[in-house]
Amino acid sequence: MVIEYDGSHFHGWQKQSHVNSVQAALETAIHQALHSTEISPLQASGRTDAGVHARAQVVNFRTDIEIAPFAFTHAVSSILKHQVAVLSIEKVATDFHALHSATSRQYQYHILNRAAPAVLDVGRVWHVPKPLDLAKLNADASALLGKHDFSSFRGSGCLSKNPVKNIFESFWTREEGDLLVYTIRGKGFLKQMVRNIVGTLVRLNHNKLKAKSIEEVLLARDRTVAGITAPANGLFLDYVCYEGWSSNEIRKNR
Amino acid sequence: MVIEYDGSHFHGWQKQSHVNSVQAALETAIHQALHSTEISPLQASGRTDAGVHARAQVVNFRTDIEIAPFAFTHAVSSILKHQVAVLSIEKVATDFHALHSATSRQYQYHILNRAAPAVLDVGRVWHVPKPLDLAKLNADASALLGKHDFSSFRGSGCLSKNPVKNIFESFWTREEGDLLVYTIRGKGFLKQMVRNIVGTLVRLNHNKLKAKSIEEVLLARDRTVAGITAPANGLFLDYVCYEGWSSNEIRKNR
Repeated sequence: MVIEYDGSHFHGWQKQSHVNSVQAALETAIHQALHSTEISPLQASGRTDAGVHARAQVVNFRTDIEIAPFAFTHAVSSILKHQVAVLSIEKVATDFHALHSATSRQYQYHILNRAAPAVLDVGRVWHVPKPLDLAKLNADASALLGKHDFSSFRGSGCLSKNPVKNIFESFWTREEGDLLVYTIRGKGFLKQMVRNIVGTLVRLNHNKLKAKSIEEVLLARDRTVAGITAPANGLFLDYVCYEGWSSNEIRKNR
Repeated sequence: MVIEYDGSHFHGWQKQSHVNSVQAALETAIHQALHSTEISPLQASGRTDAGVHARAQVVNFRTDIEIAPFAFTHAVSSILKHQVAVLSIEKVATDFHALHSATSRQYQYHILNRAAPAVLDVGRVWHVPKPLDLAKLNADASALLGKHDFSSFRGSGCLSKNPVKNIFESFWTREEGDLLVYTIRGKGFLKQMVRNIVGTLVRLNHNKLKAKSIEEVLLARDRTVAGITAPANGLFLDYVCYEGWSSNEIRKNR
């Protein structure tokens, strides 16, 4: 399945007791839609934190039930109306694994860079009133490209074995005047890595860090040398790439 | 003032008893910010209907109080947090009139054209599940360019003396795959004219109208020949043009 969700309704992807998660809500909706609980646990391409949105998250499950795609996507999207939408569903090879088969993930982060607080974009942006220098944001962002030890950007409780990650894209664009969009794509990410990168790029831009460059922050391998964790609601899991296809193409061809 | 607002919080621009309007909320906030009620009634570039959003509405008022722009915009935007933001305020010539001095207005209308309901764009789009043909939308939209009698697109209770309006821009673009954006710019508009145009273009696209063309609808000068009124929450007052400047430039230069 390719799914879109508004993270503000959920305490993240991962099922937990006593709080509402995308995984639990979606499983319940699928049971209702199929009139059956005969499905495996849902597997996503990766967890998203509480408050983080997804435009084209990829999720798989196993079942022996024959699924009619149109009726199924319609039913699940109606049950979770305006919270989660199933953009498409298709049969995949039995060895497909949304997490392990992924070749890269793209995230986007939205900053509203103006004096006035967010109105039309509220809940979808981080409001940063103080002006940011786009050229410097891009110069610093490009220093993250390639393989690095990202320990300085690693959130506490991160379960990843290896802090070395490979970044394929890292750049900022200005849209509609006061909206700044950061795009980052890599094979994998540490916990809160994107939000810690954004918080660090913003602090560095405002000369509010002791460290003078991204290189210095990376080399320190120390979370306390980097900047703050940017708020969750500016972050979007944009899409996920697999061998031969991406969830972006599927989303755009709906 | 150039202001942004989320129309879903208000019963339109115009002050009315017993319901919340942008005009009334903004007047009250200005009184609070200035610690004074010594201002004239607010004058906008035009009314917006209940539920319609504005990205760069222009509003003027008269006062003898000296206003400090930064403190004022900050105070008003804080009072109306996430509902209305004042993007800028400046002194204008005493003969400036937000309504009468305007040379044109641009509106945009957002349609989410996919099977799944809106999630991240909810409250900002009209969800049209059945596919729309963009080339045909554009061919039909271009027939609205220039001077025409728009009686077929006139909402009931419209107070405009002359149903003839002059349209400078009328086109559709596809953004992000499933988002269709209609842009229309003209000197003035009849009540609900943009929403009636969008409803008609969609119905015509789906071959759901008796009339076979926009020309036929225009020539009929009869509201019943045109299509439905598209929902308010897909409509944005984008910006307003005046001699030598537009509220779009002001918004983009924040």
